[in-house]
Amino acid sequence: MKILVLTAHPDLKKSRINRAWFEALSEADAVTTRDLTAIGGPEMRFDIATEQALLLAHDRIVFQFPFYWYSAPPVMKAWMDQVLSYGFAYGPGGDKLKGREFLILVSTGGPAESYHAGGYNNFSMDELLKPFQQTASLTGMTYLRPFVTHGMAVATEEDIEATVPAMLAHLTDPELDPKVRQARLLRKLAEDPAKAAAIS
Amino acid sequence: MKILVLTAHPDLKKSRINRAWFEALSEADAVTTRDLTAIGGPEMRFDIATEQALLLAHDRIVFQFPFYWYSAPPVMKAWMDQVLSYGFAYGPGGDKLKGREFLILVSTGGPAESYHAGGYNNFSMDELLKPFQQTASLTGMTYLRPFVTHGMAVATEEDIEATVPAMLAHLTDPELDPKVRQARLLRKLAEDPAKAAAIS
Repeated sequence: MKILVLTAHPDLKKSRINRAWFEALSEADAVTTRDLTAIGGPEMRFDIATEQALLLAHDRIVFQFPFYWYSAPPVMKAWMDQVLSYGFAYGPGGDKLKGREFLILVSTGGPAESYHAGGYNNFSMDELLKPFQQTASLTGMTYLRPFVTHGMAVATEEDIEATVPAMLAHLTDPELDPKVRQARLLRKLAEDPAKAAAIS
Repeated sequence: MKILVLTAHPDLKKSRINRAWFEALSEADAVTTRDLTAIGGPEMRFDIATEQALLLAHDRIVFQFPFYWYSAPPVMKAWMDQVLSYGFAYGPGGDKLKGREFLILVSTGGPAESYHAGGYNNFSMDELLKPFQQTASLTGMTYLRPFVTHGMAVATEEDIEATVPAMLAHLTDPELDPKVRQARLLRKLAEDPAKAAAIS
């Protein structure tokens, strides 16, 4: 499985968590990392043919970004609006991404407890990421469970380092497709008739 | 009531619906319109003091944009990430927008029926706009009912013209605050005891 990580941070040099993730991913096997801010330049302009060829050469597409105002920085959206074009990602003949996997890798400043009804951010990450989930759906990609790290506003260097192995394990896990996970659970249940009977 | 309309279209000259709305709003009383693409330039850079002073001089803030990939074009996000700064829009002392009203004015290419469970866009506009709703919440603004026009991919010039009076009426309606609307309903019920009894 080949993984393409598109990183959308306005200044990766000044980042803590996203730089640590980007560096770890850049050293991982079968992972291609792209710093969209560096590639797009100050006008956030992308070479569409290059970007589309890269998408076609990978099986799992990862959007990596810090969560600013409940979404990605503008360079992520600039890339999406330019590269996910009519006839490529949607519309007639626009099935080029169909069957690929799509995964969000995101860090938030606020704590996990705030991303709930009754928390100061009111909504869950799943609710706030629906625009990305639906982008995956329209382009025929399988939306995988996001990897989310909260509380980065007050994280120590040790907190940040500790996220790296779990992030790498999640991103490179070949069995994140929800249908694969369900099938695995059903196989386990089939091996244990007593448990299967208990939930039926 | 003074209304500030921030328009985020990548090329308003080539737009049909958003240009018609922008032009009608530019002629309306007590409405200030801003073409963010023209103002921010190719690097989407904003003069933060100017933008913040404009926000403070208005009571109702409107984000106007076409719905691309279930969100706004990148220039809207560039404006948000630069202008809604720590100490102004959130954080210590960041209560400068508190009490203002916030309204989304948006056009979609796809039809209304697609923005439902079971439609090809799966989610409702209210669901997909939650990142903006929560931005209003965190900055202390009252989130008003959005004005949404669907089906623009196949709209005629007449269809587009027909949206303008309803759009102007909605945007300038002084009674969009949900608490005001509820109070109005309760007053009506109080005038009609039979109806009030029927729903109690």
